Amino acid sequence: MSAASSKQVVEKAKKIKMVILDMDGVMTDGNISVGDDGIKHRVFYQKDGFGMVALQMSGIEVAVIVAGHSAAMEQRAKDLKIKRLYQTPKKLDKYREILEETGLTDEEACYVGDDLLDVPLLKKVGLPVAPADASPEAKEVATYITEVGGGKGVVREVAELILKAQGKWGAVVDKVLSMA
Amino acid sequence: MSAASSKQVVEKAKKIKMVILDMDGVMTDGNISVGDDGIKHRVFYQKDGFGMVALQMSGIEVAVIVAGHSAAMEQRAKDLKIKRLYQTPKKLDKYREILEETGLTDEEACYVGDDLLDVPLLKKVGLPVAPADASPEAKEVATYITEVGGGKGVVREVAELILKAQGKWGAVVDKVLSMA
Amino acid sequence: MSAASSKQVVEKAKKIKMVILDMDGVMTDGNISVGDDGIKHRVFYQKDGFGMVALQMSGIEVAVIVAGHSAAMEQRAKDLKIKRLYQTPKKLDKYREILEETGLTDEEACYVGDDLLDVPLLKKVGLPVAPADASPEAKEVATYITEVGGGKGVVREVAELILKAQGKWGAVVDKVLSMA
Amino acid sequence: MSAASSKQVVEKAKKIKMVILDMDGVMTDGNISVGDDGIKHRVFYQKDGFGMVALQMSGIEVAVIVAGHSAAMEQRAKDLKIKRLYQTPKKLDKYREILEETGLTDEEACYVGDDLLDVPLLKKVGLPVAPADASPEAKEVATYITEVGGGKGVVREVAELILKAQGKWGAVVDKVLSMA
Repeated sequence: MSAASSKQVVEKAKKIKMVILDMDGVMTDGNISVGDDGIKHRVFYQKDGFGMVALQMSGIEVAVIVAGHSAAMEQRAKDLKIKRLYQTPKKLDKYREILEETGLTDEEACYVGDDLLDVPLLKKVGLPVAPADASPEAKEVATYITEVGGGKGVVREVAELILKAQGKWGAVVDKVLSMA
Repeated sequence: MSAASSKQVVEKAKKIKMVILDMDGVMTDGNISVGDDGIKHRVFYQKDGFGMVALQMSGIEVAVIVAGHSAAMEQRAKDLKIKRLYQTPKKLDKYREILEETGLTDEEACYVGDDLLDVPLLKKVGLPVAPADASPEAKEVATYITEVGGGKGVVREVAELILKAQGKWGAVVDKVLSMA
Repeated sequence: MSAASSKQVVEKAKKIKMVILDMDGVMTDGNISVGDDGIKHRVFYQKDGFGMVALQMSGIEVAVIVAGHSAAMEQRAKDLKIKRLYQTPKKLDKYREILEETGLTDEEACYVGDDLLDVPLLKKVGLPVAPADASPEAKEVATYITEVGGGKGVVREVAELILKAQGKWGAVVDKVLSMA
Repeated sequence: MSAASSKQVVEKAKKIKMVILDMDGVMTDGNISVGDDGIKHRVFYQKDGFGMVALQMSGIEVAVIVAGHSAAMEQRAKDLKIKRLYQTPKKLDKYREILEETGLTDEEACYVGDDLLDVPLLKKVGLPVAPADASPEAKEVATYITEVGGGKGVVREVAELILKAQGKWGAVVDKVLSMA
């Protein structure tokens, strides 16, 4: 595991302006339920949902890149007001397009991925993150490995890490408490 | 963790006349299954169901406040004969309405919640409870933290705690045994 | 826990001619998935299915008594060729009817149940069994507590316990091996 | 447990040209979700999917033999481009047909199975594998027992074991990295 020291992680997290997420194994535990009617289900975690809301409330964009196609993810993205949902295995190409469009740099991007296909993108971004149960290849190139596994709060943990590093978590908490 | 001593918890539990429950992360483990057909599923725990029945059999009202909207929760509430199901993120406002309508006091209310949005309400009620896997912010303001995590029997544990504190659990057991 | 010694359990298991099962918390882990379309799902375990088949292959009847109504259980019973499926909370009455109809005695019946509603029936049968994660009230009156929790192989464990006690497990294995 | 030494396993893995998989308890954790609408769901693991893709990319065929019938498995096989999906309890007969058709020998076949019905086939193939949570009868005849349980990455582990033994894993990784 080449995970950086806690201080290095905080320094990298301070610069993040966009969080890009893989779906299977990150937002889910990697399981896919398939019905005899052909309909697939994926299980998302409510506390992750708040992590994505909190990032967006704080001016940090959230994007999702999915290798395949998932109508469930489209529904989930709609619920969480995530506009940047891309469904393509060409993750690196899509990432370059996003940087070009937004003018962001690699240092300002965080990517969370769990498997081989995520390695090239993990190697590019400023803050590469892998879940606790990611494949060894993904963990090897990650700067931060979450304490929890995929679907168990990975996105929430990353959101809090970044927002706390940037001193924005307290404001989110205050805003939410005033909404309740 | 600011959880009170066992004796303090029992003293507070003795006064409870209404138990108010959050859904995601309390009655469920926080997971939401989303199908490619857009239909969401939530997983409830049968032993929790009996906890709610037992409270109602003993004259303690059960209410559920859900931040979003869930047709599955409506079905579950109907199955368990829970009339007070409210679907609003304005949990504190709804709580005040309930107190006004019923004439109950804060001391007579127990609330079980697991995340940031629940903190204001947890701070108001006489017996604030958080599941074992709640967020740190919720646990910090809870008087009692359940031994189990959300969806694994939180409601049953709270029901037994209150009914035993009030000396009503034995009567529930007797009633159920006579029904079987 | 009043669970009997291993030898006592074997003596009781030798006499069993019918195994009666509860559903939620025994054949499942007690979870009920509810969709926003109102459809409920229950999760069964494939190895339990073989346990029921093995009992029936060996001349031991299998019955299921469910407190509520479950179309999923009806489907599962059909798949496993279980004819005795009863859907009633009056478990004790139904049990008496079964004994009358079949001429079996209490000593020849095994019941597996996990919660309060199962206690009266657990107290009647020759071999009362509770899953590892049953409620304390059920475990207290069980002669045998399975090593696994509900939905994780309880029925398979009970089937092997009984068939091994009666010296019939080897024949089942041989039959299956010849079928494969 | 009669599992062979690590070196013996590698020697056997070197010869494998086809991996044959059982479904329940291997590709899944053995759970079957049954809806009140009669529709069954099975849960597959995304990382296993890549294992099957990797085997096929490396010229090793993948076959699945299912004792019953599962439309979900048909969907899954289609997604993963697995052409050899057989739905029959006569696993040994089907296996012999496959060998005859392909000209492969027992030594060139790996079978992964978890229960009694799999024992005859496990005894025939060159590399018999059982998941960590397989029944004792299946584990007893397996040469290799996976570190993980059914549905938790068994197929991925077997795929990596074989491809690494054959010196093909590096090429798969390179190919995937160039695709991302």
